[in-house]
Amino acid sequence: MIDRTSSDVVIIGGVAAGPKTGAALARRAPNMKIALFQREPYISYGSCGMPYFASGDVPTFGELTRTSYGVERNPDFFRNTKGFDVLTGIEVVSIDRSGKTVVVKDIATGKSQTHGYGTLVIATGACPKPPPFPVEESPLVRFFTRPDDAISFRKLAESGKIGSLVIVGGGYIGCELAEAATVWGFDTTIIEREPQLLPKGFDKEIAVYAAKELDAGGIKVRTGSEVKRIFLEDGRPVVELKDSSIGADFVFLCLGVRPESGLARDCGLEIGEQGGILVDERLRTSDTFIYAGGDCVEIRNLLTGERASFPLGSLANRHGRVIAENIAGNQARFRGASGAALVKICNINMGCVGLSETFAAEAGISYECVWGAFPDKPDYYPESREIVLKMIYDPLDGRLLGLQAAGAGDICRRIDVFSSMLQRDGRIDDLFDFEHGYAPPYSEAMDPLHHLASLARARSRGLKMLPPGADSSLYEELIGNKFIWLDIREGDKFEENRPGHYEPGNFIHIPLGELRAKIGGLDKNTSYVLMCGRGARSYQAWSILQAAGFTRVYVAGAGIAGVCL
Amino acid sequence: MIDRTSSDVVIIGGVAAGPKTGAALARRAPNMKIALFQREPYISYGSCGMPYFASGDVPTFGELTRTSYGVERNPDFFRNTKGFDVLTGIEVVSIDRSGKTVVVKDIATGKSQTHGYGTLVIATGACPKPPPFPVEESPLVRFFTRPDDAISFRKLAESGKIGSLVIVGGGYIGCELAEAATVWGFDTTIIEREPQLLPKGFDKEIAVYAAKELDAGGIKVRTGSEVKRIFLEDGRPVVELKDSSIGADFVFLCLGVRPESGLARDCGLEIGEQGGILVDERLRTSDTFIYAGGDCVEIRNLLTGERASFPLGSLANRHGRVIAENIAGNQARFRGASGAALVKICNINMGCVGLSETFAAEAGISYECVWGAFPDKPDYYPESREIVLKMIYDPLDGRLLGLQAAGAGDICRRIDVFSSMLQRDGRIDDLFDFEHGYAPPYSEAMDPLHHLASLARARSRGLKMLPPGADSSLYEELIGNKFIWLDIREGDKFEENRPGHYEPGNFIHIPLGELRAKIGGLDKNTSYVLMCGRGARSYQAWSILQAAGFTRVYVAGAGIAGVCL
Repeated sequence: MIDRTSSDVVIIGGVAAGPKTGAALARRAPNMKIALFQREPYISYGSCGMPYFASGDVPTFGELTRTSYGVERNPDFFRNTKGFDVLTGIEVVSIDRSGKTVVVKDIATGKSQTHGYGTLVIATGACPKPPPFPVEESPLVRFFTRPDDAISFRKLAESGKIGSLVIVGGGYIGCELAEAATVWGFDTTIIEREPQLLPKGFDKEIAVYAAKELDAGGIKVRTGSEVKRIFLEDGRPVVELKDSSIGADFVFLCLGVRPESGLARDCGLEIGEQGGILVDERLRTSDTFIYAGGDCVEIRNLLTGERASFPLGSLANRHGRVIAENIAGNQARFRGASGAALVKICNINMGCVGLSETFAAEAGISYECVWGAFPDKPDYYPESREIVLKMIYDPLDGRLLGLQAAGAGDICRRIDVFSSMLQRDGRIDDLFDFEHGYAPPYSEAMDPLHHLASLARARSRGLKMLPPGADSSLYEELIGNKFIWLDIREGDKFEENRPGHYEPGNFIHIPLGELRAKIGGLDKNTSYVLMCGRGARSYQAWSILQAAGFTRVYVAGAGIAGVCL
Repeated sequence: MIDRTSSDVVIIGGVAAGPKTGAALARRAPNMKIALFQREPYISYGSCGMPYFASGDVPTFGELTRTSYGVERNPDFFRNTKGFDVLTGIEVVSIDRSGKTVVVKDIATGKSQTHGYGTLVIATGACPKPPPFPVEESPLVRFFTRPDDAISFRKLAESGKIGSLVIVGGGYIGCELAEAATVWGFDTTIIEREPQLLPKGFDKEIAVYAAKELDAGGIKVRTGSEVKRIFLEDGRPVVELKDSSIGADFVFLCLGVRPESGLARDCGLEIGEQGGILVDERLRTSDTFIYAGGDCVEIRNLLTGERASFPLGSLANRHGRVIAENIAGNQARFRGASGAALVKICNINMGCVGLSETFAAEAGISYECVWGAFPDKPDYYPESREIVLKMIYDPLDGRLLGLQAAGAGDICRRIDVFSSMLQRDGRIDDLFDFEHGYAPPYSEAMDPLHHLASLARARSRGLKMLPPGADSSLYEELIGNKFIWLDIREGDKFEENRPGHYEPGNFIHIPLGELRAKIGGLDKNTSYVLMCGRGARSYQAWSILQAAGFTRVYVAGAGIAGVCL
């Protein structure tokens, strides 16, 4: 086990925040005795890479447990290279705060012993949320949180024993596994209780691009579907829904995670409303001698100021550094999170940061939205790809609240820049001030973020926008009455590419260049929805119509690109 | 010409800032009469795309003059769609500030007339710097700033009349044209007076990646070479250098640009030291009724507070919006620029923002540097690519000063995020606070910017770093004495891939995992330069050695990747 009965610092948990704390601390304070206890045999593995091991894109699980230069991240590595002790297969079963000891159990032998600490770090991560429906136990029905989940799936997939797959839960992991299933070519269904995929972070009109993309990849997407139970029939799992049942060779339960805070709770540390350990900005718990970081804590949501759970590997690593600095006697803070997240769905990239509209609405936060489609580079550049963006902001003070992005183009820059602005309480004016790197192989002369800022300004001058998708009945509902589509496209295949709900009598086609001349033929008492390729021309057309006294004109956000992305 | 003798707003110049001002202003103030005069026949063309037209990547010049939906940006387009008058082939020959008129000349007819203005906008752009050496006139020796330059080159290239090409000037445009030449397969030489390519923005140890990449593409790179004169021999250009002459079928002069501020100067507007028109934050000149924007102005360098010339299409477009808002009676400001720039060199991406080390040193600004190589995504992810970063910051207060990037991986995110931080006077702590979008197809759990921040912190604890490149004599000079290479690589092909200057006796190989055990064999009075794959392990090794009392240990920035990028 370990040849001493106490350590200056004891770390519980060995995936992200734990090893990062140990490594950073051993560099800052090389004389400290640090012991990290990890229940599993694997340590410091790239858990976020597991879906790409499941898909076969990452050939062996070893690539997730080795450094980039091919060295296994095992206890020897941590001792010799990083300078602290890592003990795997050891479970911490309890914490005695008054005695400053933990009881550790060797899982293989069952033997327990007590280990003293000067400072304790809890980095126990998260565990899967239990399904809210009965599940008959089977190795063919699994969560996807531990290496064994990925390894056993991959083994079955490779041996040809999986022909069909059901994924219950359409969040990030569920969608990543659905993508993995497209690589294998399985007959796959993804089931989500909410009426959309990716309900955490994305609003429905953006999440729909994920559903379309999975659908195009041959995945059956069933949103708004509640699972009643999962049972076995001749050893094969069957997922029972309200109105049907789906048999499959394998079932993944991707229902989200919750903070693994049992140890902390048991020893009386303060726990938040979401079940995570409460920590201050220095990541100290309610006990001065105990820090906590990673998925097991609740941290401040930068946008709302409320505490929330953000189970993200990126944050866990940053927590590790902050904890190490503080234990080493330096001052470091973790100010909070805005929830930046990216997810690849087959051929499109999706990302979000900050608050979604749904969240803002539910929280009663003042907000407004703008949408647009943009090429990520100039259209004339050969590799130009489209992206759709949605921005949420406070129209009263211009405060930025959130950004969502989807498309084949480069969304990462925009999510990252927006995130860096949220970090410092950014405003619409900061978007205008943003100086992006520009050259045709990478960007347009104006960044999409500049255009979003202009749209937000135009909204304050009266611009009315509708979410992408050109959904006639939704638009009618939002507008409050019937409307006429006013398609202003020119030269870009209007005839070939019009929303299916254009019908004789409910649409007019006036190319933008003719709008000023033909404005006399339009009726100021009619509601018009402007439709163009990406939304930019509709904004221009709205300006023309507004100047002419039209007040019932709406822009279909992101135009045709918003329908056909 | 135009059927009125005065306009509310007259705009001079029709490439970027001018048309943007007109379009934004016509939306904000639709009743204003706006006239834009443009000397050339082309208007609002993608001038930054010209190198990609020259290379053939962009099939026709028309793609640079048309909107993304295929409509030609001609006077009709601006009148009908954008709502203001554009007159091409019209040169503004003088400005009468007291009378508030301009004299305009129809270039085709030679006829002049006077046109009154309420507000004047000068957006005359930049013109090529005259060569500091004699040049015999020829259509085969050209600048690369106007459409005709690109069109005539492309025509000659396509007709097989160019076999060899000399590019004089190794800045952004010169390098982009060198890339274009690799597409055509010309026998090409690029000549730069400074000892490195891309001297504006990049330091030599980063710029060298551009030279290597062009070299790999078959381009002859001659830095530190001064051109004496360019003359014609049998009608064919010859570029005469100090010690040799190069004959070529075509010569491009890419010597940079200077603000085209003659009109402004002639009418008595204040001009800055760099020859650009002086403007305030609202982009107003020394005359209340005259605004100026784009390449013809000097604006505040956000880092130094000094005025400088930033000839960038991205800034010109943003100027247009600011001018329009101000003319329309709204308050808008342009706070300054940090000089974010990107350039593609064959298979690598390069970018910079803020101050280079060279600039900071010359300006007497307190600075320190860190370097590192990073995978842009986790190494286990199939499409992972490397990038090398250099950060310049003020070690006294942690103020961020500049970032340079090169590599096949995604550099744009990092340049953009760093730029957004410079916009708001960012510090090292802001890098730690930065929450990047994370998922394996896009990023590692820790962003390279986090690692750079850690290196900067380590420097304040004594970490010594050397620039990438493993240049033995440079390192000796920087260290002040002889040193021993201490290569700590393990498992990643140390034997196959070692800098050429490792010789018996001047290097030791101790895999990092064995360093603690073998530390007794090292000598505290010897200088060691640590070498690893990317620099991260060297930082770890430095921590180990520092804790053991070694004080003469240096890290080779960016490691082997810094040599072999």
